Amino acid sequence: MSIPIALVGVGKIACDQHMPTIAASAHFHLAGAVSSHASDLSVPVRGDLTSLKSAVPDLAAIAVCTPPVDRLRLLKEAFSLGLHVLMEKPPAKTLAEAEMFAPAARNAGRTLLQSWHSRCAAAVEPMRRWLVGQTVRHVTINWLEDVRVWHPGQEWIWSPGVGVFDPGINALSILTEILPSDLSVRESLLSIPANRSAPIAASLMIEASAGHDVSVQFSFDQRGPQSWTIDIETATERATLLDGGSHWAIGGVEQPLEDDRPEYARLYDQFADLIANGESDVDLRPFRLVADAFFLGETKQAPNFLWDS
Amino acid sequence: MSIPIALVGVGKIACDQHMPTIAASAHFHLAGAVSSHASDLSVPVRGDLTSLKSAVPDLAAIAVCTPPVDRLRLLKEAFSLGLHVLMEKPPAKTLAEAEMFAPAARNAGRTLLQSWHSRCAAAVEPMRRWLVGQTVRHVTINWLEDVRVWHPGQEWIWSPGVGVFDPGINALSILTEILPSDLSVRESLLSIPANRSAPIAASLMIEASAGHDVSVQFSFDQRGPQSWTIDIETATERATLLDGGSHWAIGGVEQPLEDDRPEYARLYDQFADLIANGESDVDLRPFRLVADAFFLGETKQAPNFLWDS
Repeated sequence: MSIPIALVGVGKIACDQHMPTIAASAHFHLAGAVSSHASDLSVPVRGDLTSLKSAVPDLAAIAVCTPPVDRLRLLKEAFSLGLHVLMEKPPAKTLAEAEMFAPAARNAGRTLLQSWHSRCAAAVEPMRRWLVGQTVRHVTINWLEDVRVWHPGQEWIWSPGVGVFDPGINALSILTEILPSDLSVRESLLSIPANRSAPIAASLMIEASAGHDVSVQFSFDQRGPQSWTIDIETATERATLLDGGSHWAIGGVEQPLEDDRPEYARLYDQFADLIANGESDVDLRPFRLVADAFFLGETKQAPNFLWDS
Repeated sequence: MSIPIALVGVGKIACDQHMPTIAASAHFHLAGAVSSHASDLSVPVRGDLTSLKSAVPDLAAIAVCTPPVDRLRLLKEAFSLGLHVLMEKPPAKTLAEAEMFAPAARNAGRTLLQSWHSRCAAAVEPMRRWLVGQTVRHVTINWLEDVRVWHPGQEWIWSPGVGVFDPGINALSILTEILPSDLSVRESLLSIPANRSAPIAASLMIEASAGHDVSVQFSFDQRGPQSWTIDIETATERATLLDGGSHWAIGGVEQPLEDDRPEYARLYDQFADLIANGESDVDLRPFRLVADAFFLGETKQAPNFLWDS
């Protein structure tokens, strides 16, 4: 039985990922959208969720694709209308707000998936399984990209608390998924351009309860080859997640993948499973690591950032 | 029956507050201490907790008065020895670490009091009770002190994540205690001296779910009269917590106090009650607000800080 779902916010991520995934999904079909600007969608579009639910009474779920502003209010509105919710990352503008998500879902008896799409990359689950029983010695994360290429002219990316942590939190969502350890930021160095309010680069040292460290380099200023890798040295091997988790290698040899569908196909399958089982998945660990990186961060000033430099 | 308790860390707060409070307590008596430097205490002193427990087998509780470093490790050691724990503020170096406290206490079946001593100030509970049923319109916090007077030469106060939030978190612990609202930081401006890594001043705008704002001013650079006040405008009155919560006034008229004992006497009574009832109290909301203030913070550079200026 296909679940009628609506998009809340019809921007880049909704168009690039959510719409094609829903269109191809066996579990969901697009039944409406909430958007403040005119739209040429073939489904009802309204300016707010309550109006949309009136127009589409059998609406059962939403995918929230707006920037993380007033998310708790939106979540409570959705639950009061009896809807299940898939929430895009990052969860909220503040930790205090995000910590109220899970209790709200429990009280409402609805499903909330606080999604981390990178966890659904094809090689993440194979890597997680492979690591079970391995002794990890060290982890190195390099998440190095050019913001001018990936977020051209998107000034919101420089909001406080965002910057290079917008892609960086994807790496941390994978890290918390594949390692069984408790993780804690020990050192954080943030480089903030003189003319912006968020970091263009960050170096973190994260301590794992299993006794090893995780060295993290995030950059938004990477020219030439881009890099989204997580390197794991175990007692006997060196395993690597490549290209944001879509491929992996052991000892430099690329490993086959049983399931090479795109991230969002797997994400929507997970959402359908949670709804079927009456469960939620709200894991705020990646968000807490980012908050701790700011909390502990030593800041240094970087040169002015220019979009066209 | 008096509970044998040990101090872990014998620094300024242990000597100024914990020792005299334990000495005067009907519920506790000092049975030992963990300290790395020699001590002239009349009880056994050891370099680590496990050694102390061997020397004092009937030890039942500890008060942790060390800086917030490696707190989770210490907590787990204490629980493995069967001890109840009173933990000084701030809880830990990172949120990720602090979030593991409550599960650790539950698993161990021991009492953990993550203490916020300012909540035990004499006028806080009367103010909380008075506010029940009031409609709050606005709250203004002014927590303005001279770090040169209150923390002379204590360079640790300038560690990342600390600075003016060391006293500031006391105000936030009172705020979260007396208001029934959910609170979320909306704006944060941090002034960081050019030669230090932590803020000397902070301005916050906090939004309460009840619909009003909380304006917050923290300063470590206050010459002349010092100020630790929380002003609450309700629909009909203006109520004020004065001197860090030790006095209060309504409409400018100071109110009587039923119980004017010092903060720490009340704190240790609370710890005894929790132990007697097999409960814990681990409220991380003040810590999350501080983390959010850093997370969302716009930073501006302040002039060099000098201890002797």
